[in-house]
Amino acid sequence: MIKANTVKGTRDFSTTEMIRRNYIFDTIKTVFVRYGYLPIETPAMENLSTLMGKYGLEGDRLLFKILNSGNYLEEVQNSTLETGNYKELTPRIAEKGLRYDLTVPFARYVVQHRNDINFPFKRYQIQPVWRADKPQKGRYREFFQCDADVIGSDSLLNEVELTQIISDVFEKLNIPVIIKINNRKILIGISEVIGEQDKFKEITVSIDKLDKIGKDKVIIEFKDKGLSQSAINHLNTIIELSGEASNKIDFLSKFLKNSATGLKGVEEINIVFDHLKELKVSSNVEFDPTLARGLDYYTGTTFEVSAKDIKIGSICGGGRYDDLTGIFGLPDISGVGISFGADRIYDVILESNKFPEESGANTKLMFVNFGNEEEKHCLLLLDKVRKEGINAEIYPSATKMKKQMTYADRKAIPYVILIGSEEIKSGQYTLKNMKTGDQQKLSFEKILNKLK
Amino acid sequence: MIKANTVKGTRDFSTTEMIRRNYIFDTIKTVFVRYGYLPIETPAMENLSTLMGKYGLEGDRLLFKILNSGNYLEEVQNSTLETGNYKELTPRIAEKGLRYDLTVPFARYVVQHRNDINFPFKRYQIQPVWRADKPQKGRYREFFQCDADVIGSDSLLNEVELTQIISDVFEKLNIPVIIKINNRKILIGISEVIGEQDKFKEITVSIDKLDKIGKDKVIIEFKDKGLSQSAINHLNTIIELSGEASNKIDFLSKFLKNSATGLKGVEEINIVFDHLKELKVSSNVEFDPTLARGLDYYTGTTFEVSAKDIKIGSICGGGRYDDLTGIFGLPDISGVGISFGADRIYDVILESNKFPEESGANTKLMFVNFGNEEEKHCLLLLDKVRKEGINAEIYPSATKMKKQMTYADRKAIPYVILIGSEEIKSGQYTLKNMKTGDQQKLSFEKILNKLK
Repeated sequence: MIKANTVKGTRDFSTTEMIRRNYIFDTIKTVFVRYGYLPIETPAMENLSTLMGKYGLEGDRLLFKILNSGNYLEEVQNSTLETGNYKELTPRIAEKGLRYDLTVPFARYVVQHRNDINFPFKRYQIQPVWRADKPQKGRYREFFQCDADVIGSDSLLNEVELTQIISDVFEKLNIPVIIKINNRKILIGISEVIGEQDKFKEITVSIDKLDKIGKDKVIIEFKDKGLSQSAINHLNTIIELSGEASNKIDFLSKFLKNSATGLKGVEEINIVFDHLKELKVSSNVEFDPTLARGLDYYTGTTFEVSAKDIKIGSICGGGRYDDLTGIFGLPDISGVGISFGADRIYDVILESNKFPEESGANTKLMFVNFGNEEEKHCLLLLDKVRKEGINAEIYPSATKMKKQMTYADRKAIPYVILIGSEEIKSGQYTLKNMKTGDQQKLSFEKILNKLK
Repeated sequence: MIKANTVKGTRDFSTTEMIRRNYIFDTIKTVFVRYGYLPIETPAMENLSTLMGKYGLEGDRLLFKILNSGNYLEEVQNSTLETGNYKELTPRIAEKGLRYDLTVPFARYVVQHRNDINFPFKRYQIQPVWRADKPQKGRYREFFQCDADVIGSDSLLNEVELTQIISDVFEKLNIPVIIKINNRKILIGISEVIGEQDKFKEITVSIDKLDKIGKDKVIIEFKDKGLSQSAINHLNTIIELSGEASNKIDFLSKFLKNSATGLKGVEEINIVFDHLKELKVSSNVEFDPTLARGLDYYTGTTFEVSAKDIKIGSICGGGRYDDLTGIFGLPDISGVGISFGADRIYDVILESNKFPEESGANTKLMFVNFGNEEEKHCLLLLDKVRKEGINAEIYPSATKMKKQMTYADRKAIPYVILIGSEEIKSGQYTLKNMKTGDQQKLSFEKILNKLK
């Protein structure tokens, strides 16, 4: 007998989980489309040449690689086999891998279809990605990303719009959030002005941990990495900046006056916050000049969103990149995008008990089955109910009433209709409200109206 | 430079293709839910022990296998490596594979979660599957299946309902179809009555080709396979049966009178067709006693659907199986299901030019961008438009009018709004219908009403 088990680190989604997940995905999709983003999809498998080297050494290791079909050893030299070195063997027996994120496949897509794409290209993409990470609580080997990007436009209106999208999505999901915004150019400017431009990467790596490990430990990391005391003092001042975006912008305009890059960053942030203020989406938006975001390919604005009431880390993030498609031979195309983390958002909504109680995606009415004769009568009524757009079903056999009721109850069906021989004669059917237990005798028309 | 290419046999889906595909998926989902089927999803990867041996030798060959993570050669004996025999090596270096269909993962799901499932379990599942087939026109290595099954109920009402679902889906998609129904027990009965029960499999394999190669060639195959002349004469009579389901049922009730299995099949078909007649879904439904369907696991009713006007083969099929979960240690659970072939349905709708012209999933209004000042005015209006539930966008920069109009045109945006300094003063905005070219000066309220 074969054991029925999912692969380690992967999950099945039950009907309840799917209805909840679809609530999240549908909300996100509705907002994306409202702002002119349209869907694309790419295949699960990509050539390893597309994926390798894009996510660092660790990323290469975490790619799921697919064994070539047929006799994959045919052209492998015996000497390669005999070494027993898997690192040498892998590229000879595996040419394809599962996608690791949606960004690199999207860059590949843009270059491959550049002659058919209508630029600026606003696309969204909601698909699973796979990583051979060590499975642990909240970390899976298959999970979904929900990305929206616009590519081929360097206008800051895109940043404004993406902030509106983030704000709209979480408002619709009823989750209070903080949207932090920064600009990579400001971080570069700071490292220049404090005389530590060579340590830009080290600074961003440490500063990225502020939320996790706190200021004091970040300062210690700065020291360990050999930053000068004056540089650390400056960084400390910036970490401690507070108040309105405009205050921070004023300070940085002066502080960064000797860095052209830094001033450009401040100017960009200023434009974005001006628009956001005008559009009244600034209340939960914060300019955070210490926001770093790990990814190397960001070159301008960066976003990071966290839930106000539940500590779970970032639930959405993104930024502007100036050369994502360069690796595939299409340089100098600027883009900006965001990515929602569906799994964490699920956990936040679940924990704050905010999933809608009733779902339009569930059955609304069940006909109890009393046997062959009643069944025939019910099937015709059932057909009418469905034609009115009401989700409905009949229990498929005339088993014990209790069993049928338990089924309806476990499926969270709100109404059950009981039609025995007596009800058929009178044309008055018993409608039971499964939540309250109330029963009423009603005509079919009245029942339809009640359910609509 | 890395070449930007999809993996052979796989496809990207553009925004236009996605909107059309979602139209198909959404139609199918709406009908599934109307009948009480709820979604589940399973991971792309399954343990190879779950998949191997379920699809025959050819199926095993066509499974995409995933290389184990880390040093997958660590525990492989040198002697195994040195043979250079890939068939010996594969099970030692690959434990996981991509799912080949949705049926086996569903069976695994049912067994794994049997204590949490509310039986009878009506689930639908719409996900991609992967097969390492030789790519050719219309055959891909990644494609979607849309399955609905009910498991844990042997009531024939399920068959009736699945027929209604098929009929509803294609009616909504506006594709005329023929739904052929048969019962595996009738085919067994026929092979018994004609004295060829040992050749049951050969008979079904040949008879399955009727549509493709025609009756004469099927008869030749019967001869080649050593069927007796009298058996062939009987089969010929059955192939030539025509007219109403009731005629065929009458004939077979007599013809199969010495086969208990055959009579059971006729009785089941009779009940299904009785209900269908009562429910008036019988007009495009045909009882075809020669319908075989290749799959071994079917034990009762079988379905096959083809488009009336376009020759493309089966676009939906399914049947009843009595022991799908037995391989995972849960025997005697009967189920019945259908599967829609989304790719072929797509081709049928495209060829018959029946995709809806306008889609609610597209942008309805674009604001032309005339520069910074006008932009600010437009952003506030745009926000109002979106809050009314209308999909809208602004061109992100003030480039040449022609470029902006081309963008709107290529994105099939039906309306464009032009707001220059003059329009801002007067409060009368120019609305252009992109299809007719008509322009009108209207107040914002009138424009909103027009678009809603």
